[in-house]
Amino acid sequence: MLDQHTVEILLVEDNPDDVELTLHAFKKSKLVNRIRVIRDGAEALDYLFGDGEFAGRDVLDVPHLVLLDLKLPKVSAIEVLQRIRGDPRTCSIPVVALTSSREERDIAEIYKLGINSYIVKPVDFDQFGKMVEELGYYWLLLNQPPSRPALGAGHTSPSRSEAHGG
Amino acid sequence: MLDQHTVEILLVEDNPDDVELTLHAFKKSKLVNRIRVIRDGAEALDYLFGDGEFAGRDVLDVPHLVLLDLKLPKVSAIEVLQRIRGDPRTCSIPVVALTSSREERDIAEIYKLGINSYIVKPVDFDQFGKMVEELGYYWLLLNQPPSRPALGAGHTSPSRSEAHGG
Repeated sequence: MLDQHTVEILLVEDNPDDVELTLHAFKKSKLVNRIRVIRDGAEALDYLFGDGEFAGRDVLDVPHLVLLDLKLPKVSAIEVLQRIRGDPRTCSIPVVALTSSREERDIAEIYKLGINSYIVKPVDFDQFGKMVEELGYYWLLLNQPPSRPALGAGHTSPSRSEAHGG
Repeated sequence: MLDQHTVEILLVEDNPDDVELTLHAFKKSKLVNRIRVIRDGAEALDYLFGDGEFAGRDVLDVPHLVLLDLKLPKVSAIEVLQRIRGDPRTCSIPVVALTSSREERDIAEIYKLGINSYIVKPVDFDQFGKMVEELGYYWLLLNQPPSRPALGAGHTSPSRSEAHGG
């Protein structure tokens, strides 16, 4: 199910600046090789469930992580999250909300809908890059996703410096 | 609801070595001041829902994060997680599974039950400490929990060196 073509991160983000900053930070960190950028909620659903331009895609080949901007065109991020959580093929994918909003009601509601984590995007460019790096380190190296091949217990995780490519 | 007495982390762990290592790492990192250690699943439920020795505790004063070992005496971690997710007062608390097990079926099942993240404990002491530090950094500084008081958008997060106290 997971092979060299597996998308590690699905980035669902319509803001071109944020896409660029995120890709740049991941490239710099050397933590992830495969990022699929999706620009709206409808396209995200098409990708995840093999519809539209992604008809025929193996939907069991799930990303290791979905980064979900909360303000999306066409289909809302809330609906995307609900569809992910409501389908047995996708319900256990870690999904991290990336947002410019810090409204309490939003946050509580989105946790209840099953978001794994909620991160407010820093406005400062350097801080944004740092956030992406930390986030990637946590979810791709420290966290154990449901679908990652077992490496055997008692491994030693790469240290930060190793993980970041020195 | 949140004041200076709020427990930031509820550590539910019966292994005394792991408790000691975790407390030591958090103390070293200076990321967290208030950790409540709970040794079994029954006590965890008592704490969270104000029963038993915790009768009268304000159950709306929820921890920012629950670290849940998956092998617990008395009441299983799965049941603790289900009770947390099934109650509107606690359903949005971030819960991270800490475990020595990396069995695929366990992992997928626990994500489906609403765990936020699943981390395999490293056997090496130094790596264990590093894991706790990274985990604390992510969940206490980067992640926005449902109950943290709003700080206003566009903040700059502390850098790693600042957060770790130099």
